[in-house]
Amino acid sequence: MTINDWQQRLQRARQALDQKTKPPGSLGQLETVAAELSAIQNTLQTRTDKARALILAADHGVTAEGVSAFPQAVTRQMLENFHTGGAAINVLCSTADIDLVVVDCGIAGAPVAGTLDCRIASGTANLASEPAMSATQCQQALDNGRALTQQAASDGIALLALGEMGIGNTTSAAAIVASICNVSAATATGRGTGIDDAALAKKIAAVDRALCTHLTSLPHDALMCLGGFEIATMAGAMLEAANHAIAIIVDGYIATAAALCAVQLQPACRQNMIFAHQSAEPGHAVALAHLDAQPLLNLDMRLGEGSGAALAIPLIRAASAILTDMATFEDAGVSGKIES
Amino acid sequence: MTINDWQQRLQRARQALDQKTKPPGSLGQLETVAAELSAIQNTLQTRTDKARALILAADHGVTAEGVSAFPQAVTRQMLENFHTGGAAINVLCSTADIDLVVVDCGIAGAPVAGTLDCRIASGTANLASEPAMSATQCQQALDNGRALTQQAASDGIALLALGEMGIGNTTSAAAIVASICNVSAATATGRGTGIDDAALAKKIAAVDRALCTHLTSLPHDALMCLGGFEIATMAGAMLEAANHAIAIIVDGYIATAAALCAVQLQPACRQNMIFAHQSAEPGHAVALAHLDAQPLLNLDMRLGEGSGAALAIPLIRAASAILTDMATFEDAGVSGKIES
Repeated sequence: MTINDWQQRLQRARQALDQKTKPPGSLGQLETVAAELSAIQNTLQTRTDKARALILAADHGVTAEGVSAFPQAVTRQMLENFHTGGAAINVLCSTADIDLVVVDCGIAGAPVAGTLDCRIASGTANLASEPAMSATQCQQALDNGRALTQQAASDGIALLALGEMGIGNTTSAAAIVASICNVSAATATGRGTGIDDAALAKKIAAVDRALCTHLTSLPHDALMCLGGFEIATMAGAMLEAANHAIAIIVDGYIATAAALCAVQLQPACRQNMIFAHQSAEPGHAVALAHLDAQPLLNLDMRLGEGSGAALAIPLIRAASAILTDMATFEDAGVSGKIES
Repeated sequence: MTINDWQQRLQRARQALDQKTKPPGSLGQLETVAAELSAIQNTLQTRTDKARALILAADHGVTAEGVSAFPQAVTRQMLENFHTGGAAINVLCSTADIDLVVVDCGIAGAPVAGTLDCRIASGTANLASEPAMSATQCQQALDNGRALTQQAASDGIALLALGEMGIGNTTSAAAIVASICNVSAATATGRGTGIDDAALAKKIAAVDRALCTHLTSLPHDALMCLGGFEIATMAGAMLEAANHAIAIIVDGYIATAAALCAVQLQPACRQNMIFAHQSAEPGHAVALAHLDAQPLLNLDMRLGEGSGAALAIPLIRAASAILTDMATFEDAGVSGKIES
């Protein structure tokens, strides 16, 4: 869609919101989201009934650098936990009526029951010393992501939340943010799930080494050189959303790194994105500013799994209902502002 | 409850949360709220199924000073709008399964259909030049508020959201905040529903005059001298919550002013409060700091009606479900942190 068409759609929604029985703009960011959803769906009768969370999982060769507080085996164990329903994202999707689909984009070892097979390989190569994936693998992951969004569109999904699971993936995200936003490894790299000072130093060193190793390929090939299979799959899902009336609910730091890659490939896909959550990772603010994004929530969370996106969905549903269900001043016979 | 008992209850909840399959503390403020709810209900099996929003409405003599962008008649018109279901709070309560009760604490003129009668008088006196209410009226409003919380307890309500409607009530709230937090009228006074510079100057002048008029009675009698009937009723509801396992969900600036008055009267009632929303009013940050409160949402909203509290309820339900429904590391066979 052209910028002009997009602006016209936003404008039409804002005019409708200003006729509702409330001081103009008094619902703040909720009105912004309502207008964006209206523009994505190209209607004032927005709908948010069907929401899906995709948890994209993969393993990362960079864990060999000692960058995570948890062993790589936790990726697999958490997928088993998702399957039995005991993880945070299960609970959050259940309380908010969100369909949960766990996608294996390439974890180490054999597949886990209950996951959708979009496997590229058993984990990426170590991005600190070689490209995380081949060009063919990167393209396959992008295609897999596009197929996931196409499936969501066929299933009538209005809100598609993208989250992830993958021990080591904040290192990959940090490297992507450093490369695309042109900031230092130290600025882009945080404590992830909670590493100590020694591990943080190793993590920054790994990102620094990656930026040097791939110097001539960056930022153009950031996704292939620095990404994870789940990040590339996520980027594909984001790219495809531009072809459908689907809002992508972007979770935290890793999903935002995927958004940077997707927008780098096709800037128009930014329009379909609603940003859920400001992560505790320090580099997230840099990445959000690069995308001119203002997330709905800031709860000092650093879990991943799409937890922030799942929490944002009730807010997005509320925003949509403001547009579709509130009375206008005229309907309700309520006086407008005093003209001064 | 003693501070020590309270701290023990919080500690027990935090220990339970740390056994869940997520890095400790990684759900940030959601975990804080889960612990607070656990302490309020004195159980690890928290419940949030039944939620009620009370919209407390009243009129304000201070509107004679030209402090609002909307005429006083809008208070009544909005109560009629609540009754027919067209206002923002109707929509927000409906999307989040919250019981909505509109309480007339003293609007100008005759009662409106569909409201609960807790009327003190047809609006307060002009707080800029005389006490907003008599001591008897103030006590009656506090008692009414206590009765509302007692009724909620009888009805099995776990989450009681307090919001308001009353043209002119940000002026009352600003005067209370200036008095109790000991800041200037200019610091405490904002644009409310959206006044221009000329009206803002009148509003600051009205607050300044109120602080001078009642100099010898403040801050001790802030509620009586500066309050509205809805603010005093709200304060009563907050005070009574300390006697029940009810969490008070505090909405925006006006509800926070009521919280300041309630905590002034009985500091222990602070424990039952969960703060929903950081308002766009500049004085709100001052009042929240005074109460050591960190709201869940910051969406640049300035509507009132309990809109922020209604939006926070899905988050509080999610927090509760994290505590009650997630698996522990032991249950799920997930590895803990690598010991370094």
